[in-house]
Amino acid sequence: MNDEKYLREAIAMAKANVKNGGGPFGALIVKDGSVIGRGVNQVAHNNDPTAHAEMMAIRDACKNINDFRLYGCVIYTSCEPCPMCLGAIYWAHIDRIVFAATKDDASKAGFDDSFIYDEFSLAHEQRSIPMQKMVLREAAEPFEQWLKLENKTKY
Amino acid sequence: MNDEKYLREAIAMAKANVKNGGGPFGALIVKDGSVIGRGVNQVAHNNDPTAHAEMMAIRDACKNINDFRLYGCVIYTSCEPCPMCLGAIYWAHIDRIVFAATKDDASKAGFDDSFIYDEFSLAHEQRSIPMQKMVLREAAEPFEQWLKLENKTKY
Repeated sequence: MNDEKYLREAIAMAKANVKNGGGPFGALIVKDGSVIGRGVNQVAHNNDPTAHAEMMAIRDACKNINDFRLYGCVIYTSCEPCPMCLGAIYWAHIDRIVFAATKDDASKAGFDDSFIYDEFSLAHEQRSIPMQKMVLREAAEPFEQWLKLENKTKY
Repeated sequence: MNDEKYLREAIAMAKANVKNGGGPFGALIVKDGSVIGRGVNQVAHNNDPTAHAEMMAIRDACKNINDFRLYGCVIYTSCEPCPMCLGAIYWAHIDRIVFAATKDDASKAGFDDSFIYDEFSLAHEQRSIPMQKMVLREAAEPFEQWLKLENKTKY
């Protein structure tokens, strides 16, 4: 019951955002029965290609609870997360994802989620954005420094 | 030659960030021979799980050039991008990626990039974070509204 209520709210946020000139996506994050973060797509408004609804909701929730981990949280999103947002959901350690529209629905509306998912399954050299590894002597040094460090904040 | 110079700079930024208490990652974005954006990992510092080096560099570059697209840009990053950052690179329409350490190097240092890449290739029901699609009558309405809209800012 609550899943349905929160998901309907995420869709309502997406619709309101289109009316306000934003993209057709909304998301919210719930912990222990309370909404702790909300987001709508603000890519064009903020000139920020990372400002997807789920990203904004995660950033809002983390700010509100003063933690970069969202253990025990559920994210409700009007559309299946794109790879960027899904990655962020993993890094945030969210427990569960509930979504309404699919990435194929997004594609039909002009949003290239499926294309990006397809790219991920290709080898580096077959992708439309070339990925070049350069061998440099010092490549491992940041990690070596990190591993030696005591009292670091792990994340 | 320039690729090497910029990539060394990204690694130097990663090392400096560890000294400042941050994560061992740095990235910069170059357009027409100028650095237009820089970022280091600030997840713990900002309480923001999306604050990876590449994300911060993309957001910085977009702010600086006042555009959410980075056509004609190259991103130099001390480590192979994680799925979140790679997704953001696609959404930003960056031309090319140059990186030093690999996702396996990152895994050895305790960063779960490889794990997240593996999750992406699993079916929804096999993933460690459950993804539940809920069928709702109004799921397509945000997209329908978007498609009908005239004079929208496409992104």
